[in-house]
Formats: sequence, C-alpha cells, structure tokens
Amino acid sequence: MSDDAPFLRACRRQPVPHTPIWVMRQAGRYLPEYRAVRERFSFLELCKTPEAACEVTVQPIDRLGVDAAILFADILLVLEPLQLGLVFSPGDGPSLENPIRRPEDVGRMPRIDVGDALAYVFETVGLVRSALAGRVPLIGFAGAPFTLAAYAIEGGGSRNYLATKRFLLEYPDAWNDLMARLVDVTVEYLTHQVRAGAQALQLFDSWVGHLAPDDYRSAVLPHMKTLFSRLPPTVPVIHFGTGTAGIIEAMAEAGGDVVGLDWRITLSEGWRRVGYDRAVQGNLDPTILFAPFPIIRSKVRALLEEAAGRPGHIANLGHGVLPGTPVDGVRCLVDAVHEFSGDT
Amino acid sequence: MSDDAPFLRACRRQPVPHTPIWVMRQAGRYLPEYRAVRERFSFLELCKTPEAACEVTVQPIDRLGVDAAILFADILLVLEPLQLGLVFSPGDGPSLENPIRRPEDVGRMPRIDVGDALAYVFETVGLVRSALAGRVPLIGFAGAPFTLAAYAIEGGGSRNYLATKRFLLEYPDAWNDLMARLVDVTVEYLTHQVRAGAQALQLFDSWVGHLAPDDYRSAVLPHMKTLFSRLPPTVPVIHFGTGTAGIIEAMAEAGGDVVGLDWRITLSEGWRRVGYDRAVQGNLDPTILFAPFPIIRSKVRALLEEAAGRPGHIANLGHGVLPGTPVDGVRCLVDAVHEFSGDT
Repeated sequence: MSDDAPFLRACRRQPVPHTPIWVMRQAGRYLPEYRAVRERFSFLELCKTPEAACEVTVQPIDRLGVDAAILFADILLVLEPLQLGLVFSPGDGPSLENPIRRPEDVGRMPRIDVGDALAYVFETVGLVRSALAGRVPLIGFAGAPFTLAAYAIEGGGSRNYLATKRFLLEYPDAWNDLMARLVDVTVEYLTHQVRAGAQALQLFDSWVGHLAPDDYRSAVLPHMKTLFSRLPPTVPVIHFGTGTAGIIEAMAEAGGDVVGLDWRITLSEGWRRVGYDRAVQGNLDPTILFAPFPIIRSKVRALLEEAAGRPGHIANLGHGVLPGTPVDGVRCLVDAVHEFSGDT
Repeated sequence: MSDDAPFLRACRRQPVPHTPIWVMRQAGRYLPEYRAVRERFSFLELCKTPEAACEVTVQPIDRLGVDAAILFADILLVLEPLQLGLVFSPGDGPSLENPIRRPEDVGRMPRIDVGDALAYVFETVGLVRSALAGRVPLIGFAGAPFTLAAYAIEGGGSRNYLATKRFLLEYPDAWNDLMARLVDVTVEYLTHQVRAGAQALQLFDSWVGHLAPDDYRSAVLPHMKTLFSRLPPTVPVIHFGTGTAGIIEAMAEAGGDVVGLDWRITLSEGWRRVGYDRAVQGNLDPTILFAPFPIIRSKVRALLEEAAGRPGHIANLGHGVLPGTPVDGVRCLVDAVHEFSGDT
C-alpha cells in the first residue's frame, strides 16, 4: 500500500489523488512537542537516541497531516566519525573543531565503517517505519558532498565560502580526493538507510548555490554523477539545493528523480529548465507561513496553478521551516495544498 | 574626451578599444592607503568629509588602472536624515536604532530636502571630478528602494528578511507608501549627484535576490519602473543586484541601461535573459582574487570569451571586493581584462 502513496507516486511522475506535501524541517523547533523533547536531550543526544529521534520524526505526521515523514537527523553527523571534531553549541549552530585547512588534511580523515559508525541512524529508520505503520512513506537523507566539504573546510557556517573556494581552485587534486571520499561515505550512508527502511532519499546540497556555474560543473557535477549512479535504484532520490537558479540545469544533469527548487525561481520556470522528465519539489518562501491564512492560501493556489497540467509535483517550502513559525500557518499550508489539489 | 571613455561607450553598447573594468568596493579595506585614511576617520566621518572621501575615491584609479571611479559613500546614508537612527559600529556593520516596525512608522519619516541633507555627498562628487581631471568617468550610486526598505524594517543585516517580507505581504499599502517615499528620495539623491558631476549611476539592489519572483513583480518592479523613468536621461544607469538568477528578466524589465550580474549565473546566460538591447556588467566571483595569478587570468579569459561578439560588456566582480583580498590579485584582474580584450 505504502508504495502507492501519493508522495512516492509523484516522485515517479504518476497521477495522484492530491498533490503530496511535506515540509523541510517539519520536525523542529517551531513545534512545541519537539521543544518538549529537546528539554530532555541536547541536539546531538537526540540524534543519537533512536527512540527519541523516532518520536520527533513522527510528531509532525499526526500534527500536520503531511504526506511523508523525514528522518530526524543532521547532515553533519557523517563528519563526526571522520574525526573533524563536530560540535553543536546551543545557539551558535554546528562547528568543527578540527577542520580541513591544507591538502594533506584530507588524507588524515580515517576510512570508516559507516554501518557501524552511524548505526544509531539506521536503528531510528527501523523504529520510524514501525511507528508509521504504513501511514506515510519515510524519507532518508544526507548532506551532498559539496555542502559537507564546505563545512569541513570552513569549520562551520560561512558568508562567502572563501576557504572552500580557494581550496577547490588551488588544490584540485586534494579537492577531488575529498569529494571522492565524501561520495563513498554518502553512498554507504544512504544505502544503509534504504536497507533499514527509507523509502525515498533527499540529498541536501544546501550551500551549492554559492558557486559560479563553471565551478559547479568542474568541481561538483562529476562527483554528483558518480554519487547518483551508485545509489540504490529502488527508491526515488530528491536533489535539493538553495540559491540554485543559475545552475539548475547542471543539477538536473547531475542526477535525481526529483529536483528540489527554492523560492527564488518560479516553479514553472524551474520545472521547464529541469526538464519535464523529472519531478520537482517546492517551492514556497518559508516566510509566508508567518502571514495571515488568506495570504498563505493564495500563495498555495498560485503554486499549484504553476504546477498544473502534469503529474510530478511535490509541494514543499523552498527551504526549511523557520524557527518561530506558527504551527497553525504550517497546518494551513498543508490543508490548502490538499484542498486545492484534491479531486473532491 | 571623457564622454568617449571606454566605460561610458560600453554602457551605450558602442565598440571599445578594450573591455572596461572597475571593481565594486574598489575603494575599500583591502587597500593599505584606504586603511591609512580610515585611521583618521570613522566610516561615517569619512563619508561626511568631502576631501577625505575624494581621496579614497581616487586611490584605486592610480593603484589599479581601472576604467571608472565610483563615489565613496554608503547606500544607507539617505536613511540618516529620514531619522531611522543610522549607526555604523566598528566590526558589526550598520544598524538602525529606530527601524520601521509598524505601518504607521512609515508616515513618521520626515520629508527631507535631499540637496541640503546630503550636501556633503554632492561636494565630494565635485571634488572627485576635479581630482580625476577627465582621466576616467565617475559613477554615482544609491541603494535601490527595496534594499533600503529592507534595512529600514530589519534594522540591520538579516538572514531571512522575515520582517521585510511580512511587512510587504501584510501591509501592502504601507509598503507601497514606503517604497514611493524611497523612490522620491532616491530620484532626488541621484539627480543631485548628476548635477554635481556624476557621469553614470548605479542602483544597488543588493538584497533583492532574496525575494520570490512573484513578490518582486508585485512589490518592487512597479516602483523600480517609476524610479528609472524619473532619473536624468543624460547618464547611463546600471541596475545591480545579487542572487538574482531567478528574477533577471524582471529586473531588466524594471529598467537600466546596464544590468549588473553576480557570479551565480554565467555571463552568457545572463546576457541572453537580460536581452541584447542592454549592456551587462560583471561577473567574476570575488573569491577568485585570492587565487594564484594563472587562475585569475584563466577566469578572466573565460569571462571575456562569454562576452565576445558584441559590444556592451563592462568587466567587474559579481559583488564587492572582499576585505583581505590581495591588492596584487585585483591588479592582476584589471591587467588581464585589458590585456586579453585589447586590440594590440
């Protein structure tokens, strides 16, 4: 039954009874029941405690009525066994105490057994599948190698990605080595998630939109092609980035059954440029969820009109739901998508 | 003679002996001679001291051999007489102590005499024209109304522009009033700059790339059209923004003889989408100036090849030069543009 879920059908560009919707970061701070769990665990502890991670993964399914669950985890978890010194500081977000500064630092990273090092993630996947009991499909995910490499080199968030860009321009061999290692780790990580029960995958290349198109093509695209070619063919894969309006064709060329768009491109133009042989996901501005319901509903209506005429649209925000977003606004979004796209 | 300068000819899409180049924020922190002047003045004092502002405006002309000077000033200076409490804190950047929070705050802004309130800017323009003595043209500039409004509402820099977007969605009348007032002020400000001697103008809509295309079209484009229609027709106007790969056609529709592109779109695609009835400016990634000279030169060569075949390309970075950029890297950029595009 679950294989026939609207979300999975839309990923395969099959007709659906209503446009499926889920919301990036739907398990997060804006939900009071999530904040209640976070009082008992630090962020990293929560990721590493399968029962609790399962609980927050499932919370938005009941609360919002979304069409898919997404594993609660963080794109940076894979960097921890790579011994980059991952730390989540309250308030400051993630940082790496042992970042990659020089070409020789790449070889310093250990070869890891992902199945062992991230076993807690796969355990969570299994628990979530049981807890969902077929209600909606479960999406697994990973950070894409560029975004992981940028974190590894910058040591944290960045404004200009100067260290990353210098590294890839000045040390192309070390850069390609780093990317190849991250591709290996990511393939293993996602393959284990699928074995544990993930029914779709999303690659978050959250920061790739900062690159010039030519640098994307030379430094990222070949690695992404390799990555996509090695993922399990049994589940659909969503390829997502932000600020990608200048590289969207190249991202589609790299791979993905579904291309995730942010809000800085219209869905209709984005889909045309991605190509109608793919599904698309997105792409409302997360800030509209703070607006009164009639505005949210009119934005949803306009989005669905842009997507009309062919199957293969998964409604979502163009980026993660913002902290402080009213839960009722998210609920309004989900309901409006179902109402305006349903055949009743 | 100055009207025949390569920079002005390129703005008018006339043939040029070499591709003209200037560099956004060419008068700035990366230059030791600028830092020496800044030891004597705070940022705001420097803007308000015409002799010193003239000095730093002219510094990069001698040092770099660029084809245009740009007035040393800040896009936020117009917000000071509007009584929004403009403060430049060392290290933290600009902030507004008295931002616009509610619709009724818009009417609180005084109607100002721009010629009087910003007389120091126009005095600087006159001094610079004398100091340049016709060597290169002088570009005047202003912040575009959306970017000014976003500063006025956020009270400083922002990550998500949540307050601005909520304001424009929830209070369209107050938003339009705010934008109309900022259009009035900007027209007066730029008209005075032209009267004082500015030979071209650039509108910096630095933050407009954060908007969804539909919101740009409804909340910004009509105001930009009004603004462009009211500017002096005697000088070319450059319309610049960053992260605009999703709205570039709409920006061109709004106006500008030249459209400034950032690096996240290829110059060839950007120009095609802008339309060949406009000139284009840009668009190298500012981070490449940290790379070894052969890399800078190869990036310049690729850029010029993308622009080849028609007049109307002004070489520039895709955003301002970053603090800490090696001066020799900037010099390498300028020399390479001249060398690869010259007819000798």
